[in-house]
Parts: sequence; structure tokens; C-alpha cells
Amino acid sequence: MKNIENYRDRCIALLEDRGVTIYDIADAARFLQADYHKGLKAEEFFESIMSVLDKREVQFAIMTAIELDRQAENGTMIDKELEDVLRRDEGLYGVDEVNAYGICNLYGSISLTNFGFIDKKKYGIIAKLNEEGKDGVHCHTFLDDIVGAIAASAAGRFAHSRLRSKREEV
Amino acid sequence: MKNIENYRDRCIALLEDRGVTIYDIADAARFLQADYHKGLKAEEFFESIMSVLDKREVQFAIMTAIELDRQAENGTMIDKELEDVLRRDEGLYGVDEVNAYGICNLYGSISLTNFGFIDKKKYGIIAKLNEEGKDGVHCHTFLDDIVGAIAASAAGRFAHSRLRSKREEV
Amino acid sequence: MKNIENYRDRCIALLEDRGVTIYDIADAARFLQADYHKGLKAEEFFESIMSVLDKREVQFAIMTAIELDRQAENGTMIDKELEDVLRRDEGLYGVDEVNAYGICNLYGSISLTNFGFIDKKKYGIIAKLNEEGKDGVHCHTFLDDIVGAIAASAAGRFAHSRLRSKREEV
Amino acid sequence: MKNIENYRDRCIALLEDRGVTIYDIADAARFLQADYHKGLKAEEFFESIMSVLDKREVQFAIMTAIELDRQAENGTMIDKELEDVLRRDEGLYGVDEVNAYGICNLYGSISLTNFGFIDKKKYGIIAKLNEEGKDGVHCHTFLDDIVGAIAASAAGRFAHSRLRSKREEV
Repeated sequence: MKNIENYRDRCIALLEDRGVTIYDIADAARFLQADYHKGLKAEEFFESIMSVLDKREVQFAIMTAIELDRQAENGTMIDKELEDVLRRDEGLYGVDEVNAYGICNLYGSISLTNFGFIDKKKYGIIAKLNEEGKDGVHCHTFLDDIVGAIAASAAGRFAHSRLRSKREEV
Repeated sequence: MKNIENYRDRCIALLEDRGVTIYDIADAARFLQADYHKGLKAEEFFESIMSVLDKREVQFAIMTAIELDRQAENGTMIDKELEDVLRRDEGLYGVDEVNAYGICNLYGSISLTNFGFIDKKKYGIIAKLNEEGKDGVHCHTFLDDIVGAIAASAAGRFAHSRLRSKREEV
Repeated sequence: MKNIENYRDRCIALLEDRGVTIYDIADAARFLQADYHKGLKAEEFFESIMSVLDKREVQFAIMTAIELDRQAENGTMIDKELEDVLRRDEGLYGVDEVNAYGICNLYGSISLTNFGFIDKKKYGIIAKLNEEGKDGVHCHTFLDDIVGAIAASAAGRFAHSRLRSKREEV
Repeated sequence: MKNIENYRDRCIALLEDRGVTIYDIADAARFLQADYHKGLKAEEFFESIMSVLDKREVQFAIMTAIELDRQAENGTMIDKELEDVLRRDEGLYGVDEVNAYGICNLYGSISLTNFGFIDKKKYGIIAKLNEEGKDGVHCHTFLDDIVGAIAASAAGRFAHSRLRSKREEV
């Protein structure tokens, strides 16, 4: 597990194991850009998502988020009070969102507003994770925010590159 | 201008002078909480808004935001390139949102997601400021974000106090 | 565990169990203010620290930080790669600091710069935790940042209240 | 002023006009890395600084910071209360640091702690700007934070690339 590519592949495998595909995230990113660019396809966001997943801080945020969800899901947390907070996805918890901001911040202010929007709007995969998390079996308290943050960051990166190339055409 | 109350009153006067009332902000905060608490009235957010406006960092963020908008509007900026960016409310600008996060961060992660949502959804006063800003006369590049941030923070503070009191009832 | 006081007491107990007393944190806060106010005593920061520890988001950040340190220390993490990163306190990890910023942000920009300073300067309890974390037995990857963040926030809160009261005297 | 290179060159010219050279910033970045890599030269940070200055959000943060400093210095602010706050570099102002975090956040958590450290330590050019700002003529309230943020970000980027290449060697 020595280099970037491996860490990235590892995170993709972790996400898939938790029920999230790259396509799911790309579709969420597309949704965030749909008002600005008509007729976009999810596939057009694959490159941006891969670039986001290349960053070491993003990889560590994903790994930590999934560890916490799984410990809560398995009932193996040391702090049973915290386990209960995570399993209930308590509204005031906030650490899940703070962890997600750690990703968005790397992509600037557009990404942060994108995140806030999709986090409340609960589009696609985020809605699915959110519902599944209420079944008493799964815990996705951290995962839905991580997925929202990757989608928001990929959308922000996409917006920047589009606006830049448009500007340079002029 | 020696104490908090004066600075707060000053900011309220500055906001009104730019076309924003406390009621406008309260109504935006109410919109952000409407899914969680039915039948809320804008007036119920007055106390939270006043409390947000009491913070020195909030007051300075408001004063700075309005100064920049007015300089751009008056055409009195030293840097004409920057003036042009502000007058066009360029999509990649971002400093306006960073300034707004400085407010939201003081109220935790709920406020930040609230801000992202209302910033993209453009409800009420924010829609009005946004449209007015495109008339070639007004510049509200910083103001719409400041108003969104105050509403998001007041809604976050409201949510915290409601959830706390609910919890303590149990 | 229904109300604020209980959560606060619980966090104080968790911190003590990990080797950190309120006095240790107060002494770090005092160090951060020593240039501005001569002759301060650690005890003068107790009230600010208690106020920081009253916030729900702070309590959850502490509980999550300590859970992760203990899981790594006990060798009970599901993700052994992540466990290894935490045990080595890898320089690029970053999630520990992001979690700490979630506390500092609530206390404004002075707290954030305070945190950066003490995190690099490693004063008092932070130096102790840092060294202990290298003994191959303990893991304090998250704890040292949490302690720095509480001290930085308490110092920021103290600075605000001092400057305010000074201003109002005038 | 249509493309990135021009905006970057424009910012370099603006900084020089305010008394800050690329060498000054590189020397501050070197100072931040001196404990980790012995015998570094300021010149080794030029590439990282240029890369930081290539980002649109960084360019806008610089332009906005310098505009505010100059308006305060010239006595041409509309809000005389705010002008007074900036000219005094009031301790509780905070908007200058929030603007600087907008840069640091793009470079992750190492950059943020770097910023906090150099902001309090006031090394080199930052000390110079700080003193000059007290002469009653100059206003560098925003500039010293911007310079600290660019240096902190360049140092963070440098640390990431060094640690990565070290890791890949293994």
C-alpha cells in the first residue's frame, strides 16, 4: 500500500463494499451542475472524481469515515454512548459534516455550497444511504456526508475547469 | 461606537440601507427550519438573529461586505479589474462566500450546510438581492452571502436550542 | 446521559482517563495569552474551558477523537491500514486536525491561529502527549489536537471577553 | 486580463507594489519547513509559490485584500468606522484571517496550522509588514495575513510532495 494509485483503488473498493459506486457519485455531481450545463452525463465527471480521490487527505477522510460507520454498525465501539449517537444519526452530531468539509475545503467555496445543497436535498445515492441508515441494521452516518463531499468537490472542480476554458476562449 | 449594542444597531441600519430587514432574514431562517418544525413564524427567529448580530466577528463581516459592495457600486474601487469582477458577480470569485463562512463557522456544521442550501436555492430576500444585482446599477455580490449566512446561523442556533430542550424534556 | 452537564462531565472523565486534566488545558490556554496579559494564572481559564466543554459539538468531537485513539491503541480497528497510519501518527493524515478545527471554528479566527501555533510549538501537555504517543504503546494522534483546540478556543474566548470589557471601560 | 498567467502576474505586481517579493514569501515558507528538512533554500519554494498563485481563488483573495488595505490607507473608505478598525489593525477584526483561511484551506490541514504558527510568530516579511502597519501611514491589516497564507500553503504543498516522494521510494 505504498503509493497513491493503491490508496485510491483501496478507497474505491471500500466505497463499493459500503454500497457506493463511482457512477453513483458521478450522478450526484452531475445533478449539482445540471442548472449550469444542460445535457451533461454522469460519465463526464469520472475524471474529476478520480482526481479528488487521488488526494491523500481525501483518502484518509474516507477511510476514517467508513471505520467509524462499521464500528457502530458492528456494535464494537468502546464508547457505547457514541455508538448510540452514530446509530441514531443524531441531528446535532456534526463530526461527520466536519470531516466532509475537510474534503470540500480543498476545492474552494463552490464545493462547500454544493455540499450544503446536496446534503439537505438528499439526491440519489445520498437519499438511498440515508434511508438504509434508518433500518436499524446499517450505519451510514459518516458515509452519506463523505459521498456528498466527493460529489460536491468533483462538481466544483468541473465548474472551475469549464469556466476557465470558457474564459480563455474569449 | 464603544459597545456591542451600538455596533449591532449600526449593522442593522447598514443592512436596511442596502434593502434588507430583520424580517427578511428571519423569513429565510424560518424557510430553512420549515421541514423540521411545522407552522413556524418568522418572528420566532428574531431572538436568534439578534444573538448572531451581537457577535463582533459577525458585525465586522457585515461592515466589510457592505463596504466592498458599495465601492463596486459607486465605481470607486482602486483596482478596476476587481471592481469589474464584483459588478459581474463572477461565478469563480469565492471571497464573498469565504467571508460568509466566517459567520457560519461560529454556529457549527448545521449552519454551514444551511448556508450552502439557501445560497443555491436562493429563497426570498436572497433571490431579490440576486436579481437586483444584475440590473447594472446595484452590486450585492457580498450582501446576498452575508444575509444567507446570518439566516443559516440563526436557523442553526434555533435548531440547537430546540433539540436541546426536547432532549431535556425526556 | 440526558443533559449538557452530564455530557460535559463525561468528557472531562474521558480526558482524565487519557491523561489530560482541566489544569493541563488551562495551562496551555494561559501560555497562548501570556504575551498579551502578564501574570495570568491557569486557574483564570477554568471558566472559559468549562464554557467550551459545554458545547455539544465540542463534546462529540472529544468522544470521537478518543474512540479512534483507543481503537488504534487496542489494535481493534477493522481497517488495519488506517490503524497503522494512526499508530505512526503519519504527518499527512490530517483528519485529526480537521476534527480539531471543528472546535476552533466555533470560537472564531483568533482560536484558529492559536491552534496552529500551539500545535507546532507543542507546549506542556501537548508535548507530553506527543512523546507518549511515540512509545509504541499509546496512541494520541487525535487527542493532542483536541487538547490544543480546547486550549486555543478557551484562549480565544478569554481574549474576546478581555478586549470587550476593556473597550467598554473607555 | 483573460487568462491565468496574466492574473498571476498581476498579483505578483500588486504584491511587489505593496512591498512584498516572491523571495520574501519563499523565505517565510522555508522557515516553516526548516525543522523538517535541513539546509533548504528559499529558492526551492519558488515552484510551490507559483503554483499557489495560479489558483483563481488565491488571486481573488489577494486582489480583495490589497484593495481593502489601500482604501483604508488612502482614507477613501465609505464606512469611516471600518476604516478606523483597519487602520488600527484591531485584534478582534478577524475578517483578514478568514480571508487568509480561504487560501490555506485549499492546501489542507498542514497549511492551516502553518498559517497559525507564522501569524503568531511573525517571521521575516510578516514582522516587517506588521511594524510598518503601525507607523500611522501604511495599512497592512489584510496583507500580512495573505502573505502568511501563501507561505503556509506553499510550505504545505512542499511537505506533501516531499512526503509522497519519500513514501514512493520505499
